[in-house]
Amino acid sequence: MPGNWIKTGGLAMSEMIKNAAGRLVPSEINGKKVVPYMGVGKYKPDGRKYGPPVASCADYPDDGNKLSASLKDALIKAGLKDGMVISTHHHFRNGDLVANQVFDIAKELGVKGLVWFPSASFPCHAHLIPYLEDGTIHHIEGSMNGPLGRFASEGKMKGVGVLRSHGGRYQAIQDGDVRIDIAVIAAPTADSFGNATGDRGPAACGLLGFALGDSQYAEKVVIVTDNLVPFPCIPWQIHGNYVDYVVKQDKIGIPEKIISGTTQITKSPDRLLIAELTAKFCEAAGIVKDGFSFQAGAGGTALSIGIYFQQMMREKGVKARFIRAGSNQYTVKMLEEGLTDYILDGQTFDLEGVRSMRENANHVNTSPFTSYNYHGKGNFASMVDVVVLGATEVDLDFNANVVTHSDGYLLHGIGGWQNCLFSKCTILPIPLFRDRIPVIVDEVTTLCGPGELIDVIVTERGIAINPRRTGLIEKVADSGLPLKTIQQLKEEAESICGIPEKAQFTDKIIAAIKWVDGTVIDVVRQVRR
Amino acid sequence: MPGNWIKTGGLAMSEMIKNAAGRLVPSEINGKKVVPYMGVGKYKPDGRKYGPPVASCADYPDDGNKLSASLKDALIKAGLKDGMVISTHHHFRNGDLVANQVFDIAKELGVKGLVWFPSASFPCHAHLIPYLEDGTIHHIEGSMNGPLGRFASEGKMKGVGVLRSHGGRYQAIQDGDVRIDIAVIAAPTADSFGNATGDRGPAACGLLGFALGDSQYAEKVVIVTDNLVPFPCIPWQIHGNYVDYVVKQDKIGIPEKIISGTTQITKSPDRLLIAELTAKFCEAAGIVKDGFSFQAGAGGTALSIGIYFQQMMREKGVKARFIRAGSNQYTVKMLEEGLTDYILDGQTFDLEGVRSMRENANHVNTSPFTSYNYHGKGNFASMVDVVVLGATEVDLDFNANVVTHSDGYLLHGIGGWQNCLFSKCTILPIPLFRDRIPVIVDEVTTLCGPGELIDVIVTERGIAINPRRTGLIEKVADSGLPLKTIQQLKEEAESICGIPEKAQFTDKIIAAIKWVDGTVIDVVRQVRR
Repeated sequence: MPGNWIKTGGLAMSEMIKNAAGRLVPSEINGKKVVPYMGVGKYKPDGRKYGPPVASCADYPDDGNKLSASLKDALIKAGLKDGMVISTHHHFRNGDLVANQVFDIAKELGVKGLVWFPSASFPCHAHLIPYLEDGTIHHIEGSMNGPLGRFASEGKMKGVGVLRSHGGRYQAIQDGDVRIDIAVIAAPTADSFGNATGDRGPAACGLLGFALGDSQYAEKVVIVTDNLVPFPCIPWQIHGNYVDYVVKQDKIGIPEKIISGTTQITKSPDRLLIAELTAKFCEAAGIVKDGFSFQAGAGGTALSIGIYFQQMMREKGVKARFIRAGSNQYTVKMLEEGLTDYILDGQTFDLEGVRSMRENANHVNTSPFTSYNYHGKGNFASMVDVVVLGATEVDLDFNANVVTHSDGYLLHGIGGWQNCLFSKCTILPIPLFRDRIPVIVDEVTTLCGPGELIDVIVTERGIAINPRRTGLIEKVADSGLPLKTIQQLKEEAESICGIPEKAQFTDKIIAAIKWVDGTVIDVVRQVRR
Repeated sequence: MPGNWIKTGGLAMSEMIKNAAGRLVPSEINGKKVVPYMGVGKYKPDGRKYGPPVASCADYPDDGNKLSASLKDALIKAGLKDGMVISTHHHFRNGDLVANQVFDIAKELGVKGLVWFPSASFPCHAHLIPYLEDGTIHHIEGSMNGPLGRFASEGKMKGVGVLRSHGGRYQAIQDGDVRIDIAVIAAPTADSFGNATGDRGPAACGLLGFALGDSQYAEKVVIVTDNLVPFPCIPWQIHGNYVDYVVKQDKIGIPEKIISGTTQITKSPDRLLIAELTAKFCEAAGIVKDGFSFQAGAGGTALSIGIYFQQMMREKGVKARFIRAGSNQYTVKMLEEGLTDYILDGQTFDLEGVRSMRENANHVNTSPFTSYNYHGKGNFASMVDVVVLGATEVDLDFNANVVTHSDGYLLHGIGGWQNCLFSKCTILPIPLFRDRIPVIVDEVTTLCGPGELIDVIVTERGIAINPRRTGLIEKVADSGLPLKTIQQLKEEAESICGIPEKAQFTDKIIAAIKWVDGTVIDVVRQVRR
């Protein structure tokens, strides 16, 4: 329905345009023009990277000491004012003690209309809901996991949320789609010059890669640490040469919540079956061979797949070139056992991961720039042999949803999910249904990943290969694996659960989903209750 | 003489302006407007960092393989054409086999008017003189050590050379003063994606920091290696995400010339005395204490000073926080012995330095960005407690020259020299005369470093402290060291050698000397013969 007009953030009215995926998306979001999704690899940027202001050493202390008395002091010096874009990062996950403080201070100072640009938000950030209500924060650009997503889905956020993948977030910063006024980077260890690392200190989280782009491109950068060391803080995952102010606090994170404890192997028989089928599929497809690479997620099923890989590799005498992690005790063990040359780590999930990164030069910290930025001269997501990812819904054309549930609520971020779809083989190991709701649907509630990039669906009742992947279909044809069409899987689920009612929405757009190139692939609407 | 006009590269006529150091400099160089030097810390940039074009992964191979058939092939694909700015780097010093090839190819293709933008040039690049003569290369922006400097000093280069410090080179790239069309980076080890490292491989040189800015900001980046490894090349000192093409060759450097062999402790009694006096001065001034830092040069005198420091530190039971290097076997030994926590290394000078950097996480590779960029939010040069530097001439106001000899010939680059002047204490340990030519003069031939940044001159016949450094003068007043005024030292030299004749110049400007902030501090003129 081109020619449709809709409210998209504040008073702005925006024309609705059908994008290349057939989704209706607005031409403007929060008053800014956006480009509708044009297909995988179709949108070609023609601009230049964003250029932050040129600084001068003459404006910074010769002795390198950038310590400010407090976070409030630093934010005032950084010029905090109405309408600014403020970024924070999710290295501490649900144990973050810094982001909430930033907006407590903004509230105290009477600053309004801020855009919060986190690399992800967690339930601990439900603290910010009053600020979304009173206008301290206008809207969030970033994932809204749990309570913030529910708040947005109920139509209560003043602006429209913008969700990006980790790579898309770097792209947006680099290209100047989002111009960060103040980046606040919580750092487990830092020096007074602003060099910072995540691999040591009381709030050790491993790496600070999600803040790399912010440090490079933000107008002002504030480091907050509870472990100040003399210059130089080595490794300098974040370079002090990008930093304006350093703040020392007593405690910046809750260690037991930073290390999230999601790294438990699944005990569910169905999940174990899915993991086993996934691993066997990779073996049958000839993926598990010397020098291969795989991405290991941190969820229960993904972890179990890793364990199966490990067994296979030992049996075959095969060594991986690299594991793309989410590291944890299991991947670290593989590195130390010599089952892989490298871990290329985007995010450490337990203390063994942190220790290994600190001690082992072959446990490499990566960033969304190296791993995921689609507006680079390549990135390594496309070089990974196989990735396993989750999804809330998949449709008959293999399109997938990872942000909304079938009830329409926006409850998850995109994370690196969209970026990982570019791997050589993308597998979604998912249960056929959850709480008696089938996962395979006619049309996904929210389109996050185009079906052409999703190769295989593995469920407890069979494996469906994307018909576009004729080579893959041939390779496993005689494997004895339970191969089915995606239609068969869908019918099987519906024969058990019935066909669920569709979620109901109002016309109001509450969030936009960006594709890895910054175009709008879909929108999320307010849930009708 | 404002109002003077002079030819400054090609046909351009330029007004001459007296800068804050009292030197006459042109308003334009090679047809581009320049800013005259305004004093230390006085020029405040108001622009934005340069934004190279936004790339898209859609234009790069999914499997990450960017191999080109040959360097010629890569240069053609990179669009090599008349007038482009081409950068190369001096990690291989006089053993470089890559830069000359680039211009052999340009000559073969009939490309004209190139600007060569090396991080430094060496005698091996005298090979390029015919290309400077026939117009393949219009001019050089970078140091012109030895034969190329002589060629320029004789007025034979078509354009005006521009000399920058290592930090100034990064600043120029970052700020867009120099826009690199094609960066050719010779890399001792690389993968086909373009990740590259200098710390291993047949042509191992340690690090690739001088090419960092080029990789970040050049339109096209070519990696040339003789040691191709499977992805990922770890460490990735240069990120493949910035790289367009990778070329594999049989041999990119001559190992025995890469590791320059300059790391011999001086045997000259005069030089040893200068080294001893310098070390004693630092002790008397209270600089050699727990947690201090020093920069260790690679020349014979500087090395000897390092040895004296080492002895003092052992005797006093003192440990340095970091050594700023130029690493070599001596600094590595200090790190391994526990006499310093870190080596912050800008350039490795022997194979022990390379080994240490490869093996020891506390031997940190740095770049002109972290160390020297004056248009950053600070850099660590100003945090070093003491640096020792050379000079060809010093005047009575402590201004120093490091690029021309007293005969007027431009024979040296600036290197990190200007950047290091920002240390807390800058000492020039220099002989009172060389070849019977006094080093202390009324006015330096070429002004490279303002006297206000130079604290101490140490000669074999006495030590002169800059009168501006009253605190320092007090500290060593009772030390028993042979303290003199710089006038006294000058007179002493002249009483031995006489007053030498001044070099004679034509009006023609053959090179400009940039200050760390991109302003023009002085020019070099053609030598009259």
